[in-house]
Amino acid sequence: MKRVLSIILLGVLMLSLSCNPSNKKADEIIGKSEPVIEKHEINRVEPLNWWVGFKNKSLQLLVHHPNISEATPSINYEGVTIEKVQKADSPNYVFIDLNIPDGTKAGKFNIQFAFKNGEVKEHTYELKSRLKPAEDFVGFDSSDAIYLITPDRFANGNLDNDIVASMNETSIDRKDGYKRHGGDIEGITKHLDYISDLGFTAIWPCPLLTNDMSEGSYHGYAMTNFYEIDPRFGTLDDYLELSSKLSEKGMKLIMDQVANHCGLEHWWMKDLPFKDWVNDQEYYEKNKDHWNWKTVNTSNHRRTSNQDIYAAKNDKEGMTDGWFVATMPDLNQRNPFMAKYIIQNSIWWIEMAHLGGIRQDTYPYPDKDFMSNWAGAIMHEYPNFSIVGEEWSYNPLLIGYWQEGANNKDGYDSNLKSSMDFAMQKNIVEALNEEESWDKGLVKMYEGLANDFHYATPKDIMIFPDNHDMSRIYTQLNGNKVNTKMALSYILTLPRIPQVYYGTEIFMDDFAKPGDHGLIRTDFPGGWLGDKVNAFTGEGLNDEQKEMQTFLKRILNHRKNSKAIHEGKTVHFAPENGIYLMFRMGKDETVVTIINKRSEKFDLDLSRFEEIGLKGKTLKNIVTGDTIVWNDTLALTEKGSMILTTKL
Amino acid sequence: MKRVLSIILLGVLMLSLSCNPSNKKADEIIGKSEPVIEKHEINRVEPLNWWVGFKNKSLQLLVHHPNISEATPSINYEGVTIEKVQKADSPNYVFIDLNIPDGTKAGKFNIQFAFKNGEVKEHTYELKSRLKPAEDFVGFDSSDAIYLITPDRFANGNLDNDIVASMNETSIDRKDGYKRHGGDIEGITKHLDYISDLGFTAIWPCPLLTNDMSEGSYHGYAMTNFYEIDPRFGTLDDYLELSSKLSEKGMKLIMDQVANHCGLEHWWMKDLPFKDWVNDQEYYEKNKDHWNWKTVNTSNHRRTSNQDIYAAKNDKEGMTDGWFVATMPDLNQRNPFMAKYIIQNSIWWIEMAHLGGIRQDTYPYPDKDFMSNWAGAIMHEYPNFSIVGEEWSYNPLLIGYWQEGANNKDGYDSNLKSSMDFAMQKNIVEALNEEESWDKGLVKMYEGLANDFHYATPKDIMIFPDNHDMSRIYTQLNGNKVNTKMALSYILTLPRIPQVYYGTEIFMDDFAKPGDHGLIRTDFPGGWLGDKVNAFTGEGLNDEQKEMQTFLKRILNHRKNSKAIHEGKTVHFAPENGIYLMFRMGKDETVVTIINKRSEKFDLDLSRFEEIGLKGKTLKNIVTGDTIVWNDTLALTEKGSMILTTKL
Repeated sequence: MKRVLSIILLGVLMLSLSCNPSNKKADEIIGKSEPVIEKHEINRVEPLNWWVGFKNKSLQLLVHHPNISEATPSINYEGVTIEKVQKADSPNYVFIDLNIPDGTKAGKFNIQFAFKNGEVKEHTYELKSRLKPAEDFVGFDSSDAIYLITPDRFANGNLDNDIVASMNETSIDRKDGYKRHGGDIEGITKHLDYISDLGFTAIWPCPLLTNDMSEGSYHGYAMTNFYEIDPRFGTLDDYLELSSKLSEKGMKLIMDQVANHCGLEHWWMKDLPFKDWVNDQEYYEKNKDHWNWKTVNTSNHRRTSNQDIYAAKNDKEGMTDGWFVATMPDLNQRNPFMAKYIIQNSIWWIEMAHLGGIRQDTYPYPDKDFMSNWAGAIMHEYPNFSIVGEEWSYNPLLIGYWQEGANNKDGYDSNLKSSMDFAMQKNIVEALNEEESWDKGLVKMYEGLANDFHYATPKDIMIFPDNHDMSRIYTQLNGNKVNTKMALSYILTLPRIPQVYYGTEIFMDDFAKPGDHGLIRTDFPGGWLGDKVNAFTGEGLNDEQKEMQTFLKRILNHRKNSKAIHEGKTVHFAPENGIYLMFRMGKDETVVTIINKRSEKFDLDLSRFEEIGLKGKTLKNIVTGDTIVWNDTLALTEKGSMILTTKL
Repeated sequence: MKRVLSIILLGVLMLSLSCNPSNKKADEIIGKSEPVIEKHEINRVEPLNWWVGFKNKSLQLLVHHPNISEATPSINYEGVTIEKVQKADSPNYVFIDLNIPDGTKAGKFNIQFAFKNGEVKEHTYELKSRLKPAEDFVGFDSSDAIYLITPDRFANGNLDNDIVASMNETSIDRKDGYKRHGGDIEGITKHLDYISDLGFTAIWPCPLLTNDMSEGSYHGYAMTNFYEIDPRFGTLDDYLELSSKLSEKGMKLIMDQVANHCGLEHWWMKDLPFKDWVNDQEYYEKNKDHWNWKTVNTSNHRRTSNQDIYAAKNDKEGMTDGWFVATMPDLNQRNPFMAKYIIQNSIWWIEMAHLGGIRQDTYPYPDKDFMSNWAGAIMHEYPNFSIVGEEWSYNPLLIGYWQEGANNKDGYDSNLKSSMDFAMQKNIVEALNEEESWDKGLVKMYEGLANDFHYATPKDIMIFPDNHDMSRIYTQLNGNKVNTKMALSYILTLPRIPQVYYGTEIFMDDFAKPGDHGLIRTDFPGGWLGDKVNAFTGEGLNDEQKEMQTFLKRILNHRKNSKAIHEGKTVHFAPENGIYLMFRMGKDETVVTIINKRSEKFDLDLSRFEEIGLKGKTLKNIVTGDTIVWNDTLALTEKGSMILTTKL
């Protein structure tokens, strides 16, 4: 009935459009619905709202309410039609497919659910206007530098939300690396000047969605509600404020999303819609009341089985269908309702928070065809968006495989703009830790970068000295500050998208227990009231820490406007005598990165670099401001890095 | 004049062809030349002879003789025309381009050189008939198993050629690893039964061409004459006999060729035809009389610069144009005469010796475009031939890049059927030497093989436990005999072309000085008169050595007729509990390779391998002959490998 009505309406619309001499826009014509009296009689409808004007006209609502499957839903809103109503295995779910045609006006309407006993329940649903064109959702790229933050550990901006009594974990303990420490969104927002002054142009906070687990979920990767900011981190408004403050500074907000799993305490785990909503569900249902993490079927983590033409079916399934860990149920993206749920959730957050990118966790673990569809659906709506997928692999074949445009023999295209260069990260650390020899030391950076010939678009790959799952670079480099600066000089001038973990700018470390996740995610000094050291103000920092902040600030702020670094041509020379040079060349600038492992004075013969065409030119050291003239030799006085620019 | 004549003759031929009702073949009609009186008044004409009936009708003769450039060459042979005569920089060279059209009859003719002073010198040149169709030159493939031999060190079959007084190195000394030991072609020919009985189907002897260097050239890679068998190894007839004996046994002869360099004593180094015949020639010319190896411009060996999109021009040239070592001048394949010389030389040997393949040394060192043309020219003449290129790289990206059909982003196609899997070789050694852990041990074999998704045709890649440049596998595996057998079990059942270095079948080692090239190339026991141990007869071998010979014999002889191993489907399962299984599946056979690192008894649960469909089947151990029934579990009693077949 509804459908017939909407077809008639559409007919009228088309008629009026074609006859209307003033050529008014469609959304001004459609949608003459009366003001709605808001009703919230249904437990849960997701997505929480939607928008008019997407390329994809369909929307699937997940509705959760006792015995909702026996009710008949209806909508009375011009243009919007119910295309399909589908029941699940649980009687408490119904999935409603809506069609929202071009020209539908933004507004609210009530969805009515008529139960068999005559009762009618209503739920007010809103279709919002889109506030900026899809093309203006520009994702991070090689012109950016990303600051990675573990929100619980960066800064406690709001003391009132440290403990939320209604939640499962109700304490904070800053002395325990695995307990919550109180950091929050406000803490980040308050310190955007600091981050921006350092020269970063984007932030990637680890997940901020609700993780209502009883313990150990301060990291955010055990989500129990995909549509809610964790109250201990703040509110949706806090998140939107963060986004808008970033936007004012010309910075981007990257959201950390997880398509592979949820937290065991996710609300739907108590009443799963389908028999196959999560993998290994039968086992879960049978054992959920006496949960024993030892017996759950966890992933075999054999990530190569995603590409391996010889991989056993058993191993492939063991990889994608096993749970990541026993407290994180593995979502089954082969269930089409789950697939749509995840895709819509991602789009909801992009549109709601004006995201500047998504970082997708545990990228190779979900069904890979789904992941391609997921990224494809997002990129279809936001053609200039960026997504980076996390695959912790040292194998360039795998890094390359996941990037959009890879010439994969199996035809797979991920639709993923960026993948993560764990291989290069490892090469850099080894290169700097090792003594120089024929096949050790700087040659690992050189030969690692030489693998770029294989990648679809090397400059869209993400490189990082460290992240939230590994010791900071300073620890990885055994506390060597000069080596740490060399690593950063190289990383920040590579043809890549660089990302740095918070605290690396002040030589934060985890020497006390290297690799310990709780320790890696140490509180940032100054983020808490009463901190004796305050890295935001510099108070209590030692000279080396302050100098490191300045060092990074100079490089990053130069980098910000350097097209040579963002997208210039790259030429590098095989390391010789413990010295490695990389040149980045744009139209109006050449940047030279010199990595020098020699501690004694050395006159570098510049004739080898003649092809770059710098002879006679004056170059400026972007950190010290000193200038040199590029002639026959360059005097290197001590071990360290040097970044020179022709832009004076 | 000649040209006009031949055009007239061709016209007559065409006329007669079109009028001739009996439709005689062209070569019966053309070529009515009179018997030739053989003359050899020119110092050197290369190729030494040629054949009629190639697809490529042109042939370029290099002629070397005092002041030959001032002479006018002429030929009087039906069909054959001189297309071009080109002078070089040295007056003592001339390059003559001949055209040998379809239908030219095999035969001899004299090339006349008319000097300005009226003198005429003659050189008899022969165009031979081709003895087998081009399609029948079938190269090695995954149905083969290749035995690699260092000829000087395998067997001394002819005592008379141990010392050749006219050559620069005039002694043999079996106690010195870097002196000649007297092994030769006859030594190989005499022991073909041994090699064949072991189950090998092809041999690759290291180069047998003349290396008339003053020292250290027993290995054969410093060639001083590309058209001559080293007299200390034998004669051309010896080589042809080796080939024909192999052929009688259905075995293939693979020739080790070198396009990158020659030996410093190569005859042309005394009188170089062009100013750019070798790279860095100016330096050579200036210093040749007081040669100092320290100052020569050797290759930087930065092989990644061949692919690297960021490589400096300086490094690329330093890689390809530097000399491999100071005693091996680097041939300049960008000189078109040199390019043709190398291509024709390769074809000459294929056609002359009925080769079953070429192994090309130092593959990434010559100009890579030339190498593609070189292989392309060969494959054009011999569509079923095989060439394997040596690139010593652990990087699958490079291994893949060189193989024909690689989807290289730069469009490069090598025309090379096979490349060498140094990456997998290293993985196997590490896998067996390491203790098992999450990312160590057998997983390296498993994940290494998983890289096959990247290769154009994995089964055409060559795998080997060892070669003439590295310690034998037994040494690499620290003298562990069980591990050595595990490595070989895996290698010989992989989807690859396996190659084994002589002596590995009797656990030869170089523990006395691991990695020492002279020691690696130890004399094979029994190859010399008076040897106390004779591995050919078994005399003096210990039980473990004999058992190892039997072990290899059983595997290789099964492999010979196993289509499952040659080209079957591969399925492998991620190692678990120190046990790794690989299945090779053909139409009528499944082969199971089990690599088991556990020393205690273990009942392997077979349910994980259900998808292979072996349940209830009887399988035979191809080494012991024992049979087992594939049911719920398989009892593994001790550490080691097991190869099972469904072919009883």
